[in-house]
Amino acid sequence: MMTRTSRVPVGIVGAGPAGLFLSLLLRREGIESVVLDSRSRAEIEGTIRAGVLEHWTADLIRDLGLNGRMDRLAHRHGGVTLQFCGERHHLNFRELTDGKEVTVYPQHEVLIDLLAALDAEGGQVIFGVQDVAMHDLRTDRPRLTFRRAPDAEPEELLCEYVAGCDGFHGPGRQAIPVTERREYTKVYPFGWLGVLVEAPPSYHELIYANHERGFALLSTRTPEIQRMYVQCGPHDPLGEWPDDRVWEELHRRLDVPGSCVTEGRIFQKNIVPLRSFVSEPMRYGRLFLAGDAAHIVPPTGAKGLNLAVGDVVLLSHLMIRAMRHGDRDALDTYSARALRRVWRAERFSWSMTRMLHRDPTGSAFEGRIHLAELDYLVHSEAASRSLAENYVGFPVEL
Amino acid sequence: MMTRTSRVPVGIVGAGPAGLFLSLLLRREGIESVVLDSRSRAEIEGTIRAGVLEHWTADLIRDLGLNGRMDRLAHRHGGVTLQFCGERHHLNFRELTDGKEVTVYPQHEVLIDLLAALDAEGGQVIFGVQDVAMHDLRTDRPRLTFRRAPDAEPEELLCEYVAGCDGFHGPGRQAIPVTERREYTKVYPFGWLGVLVEAPPSYHELIYANHERGFALLSTRTPEIQRMYVQCGPHDPLGEWPDDRVWEELHRRLDVPGSCVTEGRIFQKNIVPLRSFVSEPMRYGRLFLAGDAAHIVPPTGAKGLNLAVGDVVLLSHLMIRAMRHGDRDALDTYSARALRRVWRAERFSWSMTRMLHRDPTGSAFEGRIHLAELDYLVHSEAASRSLAENYVGFPVEL
Repeated sequence: MMTRTSRVPVGIVGAGPAGLFLSLLLRREGIESVVLDSRSRAEIEGTIRAGVLEHWTADLIRDLGLNGRMDRLAHRHGGVTLQFCGERHHLNFRELTDGKEVTVYPQHEVLIDLLAALDAEGGQVIFGVQDVAMHDLRTDRPRLTFRRAPDAEPEELLCEYVAGCDGFHGPGRQAIPVTERREYTKVYPFGWLGVLVEAPPSYHELIYANHERGFALLSTRTPEIQRMYVQCGPHDPLGEWPDDRVWEELHRRLDVPGSCVTEGRIFQKNIVPLRSFVSEPMRYGRLFLAGDAAHIVPPTGAKGLNLAVGDVVLLSHLMIRAMRHGDRDALDTYSARALRRVWRAERFSWSMTRMLHRDPTGSAFEGRIHLAELDYLVHSEAASRSLAENYVGFPVEL
Repeated sequence: MMTRTSRVPVGIVGAGPAGLFLSLLLRREGIESVVLDSRSRAEIEGTIRAGVLEHWTADLIRDLGLNGRMDRLAHRHGGVTLQFCGERHHLNFRELTDGKEVTVYPQHEVLIDLLAALDAEGGQVIFGVQDVAMHDLRTDRPRLTFRRAPDAEPEELLCEYVAGCDGFHGPGRQAIPVTERREYTKVYPFGWLGVLVEAPPSYHELIYANHERGFALLSTRTPEIQRMYVQCGPHDPLGEWPDDRVWEELHRRLDVPGSCVTEGRIFQKNIVPLRSFVSEPMRYGRLFLAGDAAHIVPPTGAKGLNLAVGDVVLLSHLMIRAMRHGDRDALDTYSARALRRVWRAERFSWSMTRMLHRDPTGSAFEGRIHLAELDYLVHSEAASRSLAENYVGFPVEL
């Protein structure tokens, strides 16, 4: 069978937030790319994920003109509530950060908007591809190979640069020899049981609760659908969490006098173990990793999507400098600059996770330290500002 | 043998910072106390300990008129330096905290000043006592028994209140039945090797260094004598640390181009394991614990002395309310109020210790998190303010 060969400046593996933002950001500067993803478009647009957009991420979406649906569907939150020892404490982000806020807008909605924009502007996204492989990454002409279907002819994309935006399980990171990278991992001894519920909002903003029975998070989605989480064992079978147990734990961990969790029909339920992960470096020859391919954060800090977007804001800027302005050395700075941001977010996510959960393997001393942290945090303006500036996020420094 | 009985409003066990400040603070309000200590005065005045006074602690010493020697001998520091990845970062406390600073003045100097003041004002401190025991603590008339010498007659002090200011190993905490208290402990997998050196200062302020070989701290004492520390194993024999190894580690961990540790004759060397400890509650009937009797912090945050003083500022205030103003319930609030301050300092000390040391039992992930914390800390004004406000300390809220 013949291999069909084509050329494109940037080959992108993965049509998640990193890959699609990268493709659009490059396209707006006139740089062509092809995005490959093994999933179907329906799967990408239909997989419901959480989504808290940092201030600058929402700004970016507006700057790119993608904000039509976001303006209608998203909720802006000017703060969050921390609950511990049975009391709620509001952190007012707008006051603590000179007017910044976060936008609750699920990740798959962002992907729908990105795909619509790429469609309208002639972007190339190929769904349902098979056997994606990366080649010749340390040469000036890296290649991607793939098939459009199991029995389709093999295709080859000759690129200037390859972006591995293919998530934790994709081929991108694996294309870097293990001797050339170092992995840092933290596996937490707990997970999140998440439910989607048909109910009106229980509260006007997110509530993060540290309770003696474990963490709980009251989030939101739409006026009719809510997202709620309770800390569980990382490998609990779903069968151990019938609806009545979920409600009992949500009530015990989140209810305070005068404000209770509103029940409704649970129509989705899943358990995710929590982990932190970083792979260094994020560049190997002409391959550049972005998003979950290089790093995972536990969801407590709401950083995953934003980190992926941050990576490609930097990466697209450097690719544009390399390809439009002849500054080839620019891309040499990508890995170190991206990793500095990554570790800052890893630190925040780890810190929030540690402080808010009950660690079944931890000591009583550590449990009290976490309560002392929360007590200090909500009573110190400096500490509140520190949490707030991390939560609303740091713009990428270009 | 007859027991000689006398009466005093407040019986204080322990002539360390907590006991002596308590006795003086009460005396200034006309409340008599007797301080008992098993050590000799020479031992108390001659045991060299570190000492970083928080801003309000130095203010208290001035308010009490004890500042004659401190003004001559102490050094005021308007900041500290954090060193990591081979670079030094100055934190300007005066700017970050609206003018606050710390005062480097060793603990035994404070004790000399306190004992001189008590001498001058008719305070009663009995040194070298034996067999100190506490009795009837849950009655209205608690008692202390002791002997002035092994063969001296037993003596009995009938008190209104008893203060256990007798350190981690004293009888105070042990007088509370184990069923009535809860202990929280964290033992760190490292210790500090401390040396006193005949040399001029190497640097104008304290340097806390996170180095791949372990923590190091460059402190100071006088123009002729310096205090330096390196992280070591918690149970390293001193024989494993000959002077040349100490200097090698100090140089490797602290030297930067243009600024090296100045060597000199090492005339004292010791190793202390690091630990965090809190015992709750701090009150049992008419017994009130203060200082190391109830809590230990690792030295990294320089909080030990200040916490002890904070305890007795609160305790003396409440005792005065109880005895002078008839507000007997006031002392019911002591334990909870003191413990809230204690846990805040425990949190800070734990956090500084974790961030600055290399944990031989820790993961590579945690090591990178600590560097990310330091990087964030020195580049975020909010985070710098948070460290600064904790380091210069929080006044006791009365």
